[in-house]
Order: sequence, then C-alpha cells, then structure tokens
Amino acid sequence: MRLATVRIHGRQAWGAVVEDGFVDLSGAFPHWAGLRQVIESGALAQVAASALQGRAVTHGFGSFAWEIPVTDPGKIICVGVNYPDRNAEYRDGQEAPPNPSLFIRFAQSFVGHEVPLLRPPESAQLDYEGEIAVVIGKAGRRIPEAAALGHVAALTLCNEGTIRDWVRHGKFNVTQGKNWDGSGAMGPWLVPFTNAAQIADVGLETRVNGEVRQKDRTGRMIFPVARLIAYISTFMTLSAGDIIVTGTPTGAGARFDPPKWLVPGDVVEVEAEGLGVLRNGVRDE
Amino acid sequence: MRLATVRIHGRQAWGAVVEDGFVDLSGAFPHWAGLRQVIESGALAQVAASALQGRAVTHGFGSFAWEIPVTDPGKIICVGVNYPDRNAEYRDGQEAPPNPSLFIRFAQSFVGHEVPLLRPPESAQLDYEGEIAVVIGKAGRRIPEAAALGHVAALTLCNEGTIRDWVRHGKFNVTQGKNWDGSGAMGPWLVPFTNAAQIADVGLETRVNGEVRQKDRTGRMIFPVARLIAYISTFMTLSAGDIIVTGTPTGAGARFDPPKWLVPGDVVEVEAEGLGVLRNGVRDE
Repeated sequence: MRLATVRIHGRQAWGAVVEDGFVDLSGAFPHWAGLRQVIESGALAQVAASALQGRAVTHGFGSFAWEIPVTDPGKIICVGVNYPDRNAEYRDGQEAPPNPSLFIRFAQSFVGHEVPLLRPPESAQLDYEGEIAVVIGKAGRRIPEAAALGHVAALTLCNEGTIRDWVRHGKFNVTQGKNWDGSGAMGPWLVPFTNAAQIADVGLETRVNGEVRQKDRTGRMIFPVARLIAYISTFMTLSAGDIIVTGTPTGAGARFDPPKWLVPGDVVEVEAEGLGVLRNGVRDE
Repeated sequence: MRLATVRIHGRQAWGAVVEDGFVDLSGAFPHWAGLRQVIESGALAQVAASALQGRAVTHGFGSFAWEIPVTDPGKIICVGVNYPDRNAEYRDGQEAPPNPSLFIRFAQSFVGHEVPLLRPPESAQLDYEGEIAVVIGKAGRRIPEAAALGHVAALTLCNEGTIRDWVRHGKFNVTQGKNWDGSGAMGPWLVPFTNAAQIADVGLETRVNGEVRQKDRTGRMIFPVARLIAYISTFMTLSAGDIIVTGTPTGAGARFDPPKWLVPGDVVEVEAEGLGVLRNGVRDE
C-alpha cells in the first residue's frame, strides 16, 4: 500500500499508487488537504486500505509529476552518522558515539521522485546519501524506547543529497552543505508502518548509473529507529508529519579516491526492501 | 511602531503595542491570519503606521500573554559565532572563520516575552544568549549583499537559550542543545525595518537579575546582517517570515568559572536600542 503526493497540470493531489498508475483521492477526502492532514488524523493506514476498493486509476504513469510525499513537514531531523563503517570513515580514532549527531534540513532542499537533483554553479561536489525516512504519526515528548515505534505512521526513501565542500564551510555544523534547494530527494511514496519488521532489518542500497555504491541493512544502525525517537523526543516534542531521516551507509562519493561526485546525466537510485526505488537524475541548475 | 502576537483568553491575536497596552488588529484585517501573513503581503510598515489612527487600546498590559511575534516561521536560521570576543572564547587558536556557522532552531523552542524559560529535568545547564533576530520580508535567492537589507521586514529580540551540555552531545552539530522545547524566547514584538541605521551599530545587552552579562554593538559583528542574507540565500531561497538569529556577544553563563547557569527564579533581560527589552523568568519544567 503506497500513498503519494503528485502534481497534475499544476494542481497538487494526493492519493494511492497502484500497479498501473495513480488513484487520486483528494476529491474523495476533501477534508484532508494533503497527506500531512491524513497523518495528523491517524488515518493513513485506513485510507490506504479502503481507498482502493472500487476505485480505478485516475492518472497513468507519465501523466503526473512526483512531489515529496509530505510537502509541508513541521520538522525534518537528519541523523549524521548511523552505520558502523561510516563512523570508521571519519578515521578520527573515536569509538561509536554515545548519542546521535543531528542536523536539520528544510523541505525545499528535496525534490520528488524522478525530478532531477540540482547541481549548483557554486560547487562541483554534489554527493548522494541513500537513507530511510520515518514519518511520525502520533505526537509525543520523552517517548520511551519501548513505545517509540507506535509513534511511526509511515516510511519512505530519501536521497540526502549533499554539497560536500559546504558541509565544513562554517566552523561548526553542517547546515549549509545539507540545505541547497533541490539538492536531495524524498519519495516516491509513503508506505504505512504497521509492523516493526518493516524497519528492523531491511536491506538499503544506493546505485549510481546502476553501480552499487552503498549497501547495508537497517539492523546495523548504531541508533535504531526506536532509540532515535526516544532520544529526539527527550528534548523536543515530535508531532504528526515530522520526519526523521535515519542516516546513510558507507560509500558516499566523497569516500572514493578520487571522489566520485555526481554530474549531469547521472541517475541515482535508492532502494530498500518494501519501500521501492527512489530514482533521480542530475542536472545543472 | 511595534507589532506583536498575543494570546487573549485562549485566542491568538495580532496587533500593535502602544504605551498603554495592546491594540487588537486581528478583527480589522481579517484577511491576514497573523503577522506572517502581514509580512508576506509586504504590509508590515503600512499596517503599523495606519493601524493606530483613531484606534484605542483594546487590552491593557496584564490582560494578555505574549507569544513569539511570528508564531509559524518557515525557517529559523541561527548564527553560531558572530562577535569577535566570542570567537576568541573558543581558544582554538583559529582566526575569525571565513563563513558563518549556521544551525537551525524550531519555533517550539521559543516562548514569548514574560513567559518563563523551561529548565528541563535532564540538565542543570540552561544558559542565555542575547541576540537580535531579523525577519525576512521579501523572498530571494542569491541576494547580492548590496540589496540584502531590502529583504528585511522587521527586527526583534531573541534569547537563544541553550542547554549547554547537550550542544556537544553528538559527534557533530549543536542541534539538540539548541532545540529544547521552551528553552529560549523571542519578542516582545516586531519593529518594522525601514532604515539601515536600525541594525548597523546598535547596542545589545543581556542582564541576569539586573547584572550585565553580555554587552556589545552590532557594528562589531563578524558577519553583518547583509552578509548573512547574501550567504544564506546562496544555498537556499529565503522566504517572507523566515528568521535569522544573528549571534550572541561574549559572556554567556558557560564562560564563567564556575559557570553561571540559570536557575528557577532568575530573570533574564535582552535589550537593544530601538527594540525594547525581552524579559523572561526561569522555571523548572
């Protein structure tokens, strides 16, 4: 069951994605302006299940453009280093850190599925980072780890695209390397989260022009999703529609010698079991 | 001329602040739901000027609670180290950095004027940082420094309250030390920005229980406001209602030996010429 936000002739719509195309549900459920409102109502899984009964595809593939699934999340919180080999990549002799490193991205830094990532004129160092994103469904503060997965509404994929030389542009913090307009991607769709097995130990892979660059399993996360939710909600209330981007495996372009930056014409695919494939080209801005 | 957002018997209202109290303008301009919408319409200065003609105070001081002036900013971007002595405080032997360090806060981390800051049970290290915040009025990307101040709608004050031991909780990034719910404050009001002299070289001071702890002038900023806007808009579009929090002078509580953390009952005042005084008590959460 997959729910997406799309653009059809300039109009935004949300609905279900089935084998043959998109089933527009915006008209059938006008009291929900978008998927964020569906999530806030706690109705995602029910809508997904009931929406398809007796409904036909309204728009075939190719007749609409993909947007990021939740276009207006209140918060997007990203985890910096969450797979063991990636911690080792930093070669600073430190053991795995006791707490996750967190940074923030704004929605405008992401494009939807099949929309090209933008390489800006200011840098040639556009890099990919394949990740799984968790969408919060139920608000909470100081959520116990044991209850944390009950606060998850859905999963999706993220290419946490980065302008690598701007990550260390300032004295502290990676903000500016992580927030170039249109430098990353999210989608294609939300998969309602109904079972811990959907995130416990699934394969995650990133390919560039078909070549596997990143490959790992969520079971190896230093900070599993339940721990991330418990930790983040210690200091701030998580709300329905908030998104946690859970970190990337080793193998970003920066780690090759020489580095393998993305260039126009490249195609990046992020794939995870049960979540599909997020595919984006690259173009010069 | 001062515009504020307040709460009156559970209802949010926006309007002007005059000598004797608050002039509710929400009813007179119902097409603007709040100050963010006024700013998006480019109408802040005009509303401020025209609103008071023939209008009386609707709510005396004490009959309403202050909220942060823009309750729903799209982005709040904070500058990490922007006064010379503060750079020296880090004692890492580095010269002033070539680019500003940036981090993000969410609106929920701020309370309004005269609302107590929250000291959480997880830490005794609640610290103050007095700053001036700039509210963007006109959207732009890659804004030239020479044109940057034309994108500013208003100024306000910020106590960029910090849970100090959580700033270095993760391996990188200060996110979690800067985003405890209710740990900082913004306000009391917006002062429309009509003249570069309002920010060029004004005095900024932070007091705790009347004792001056921070005192500097905006003319000494390492990255002046126009440079911040030009730099930030290089990588992301700034939109009306976005807020840039411009950095704090030396003298936060962490820099004393022993450190002077805030404790319940303390009163913190942030004052700047032309912007008034932002005052907050402290209470245990």
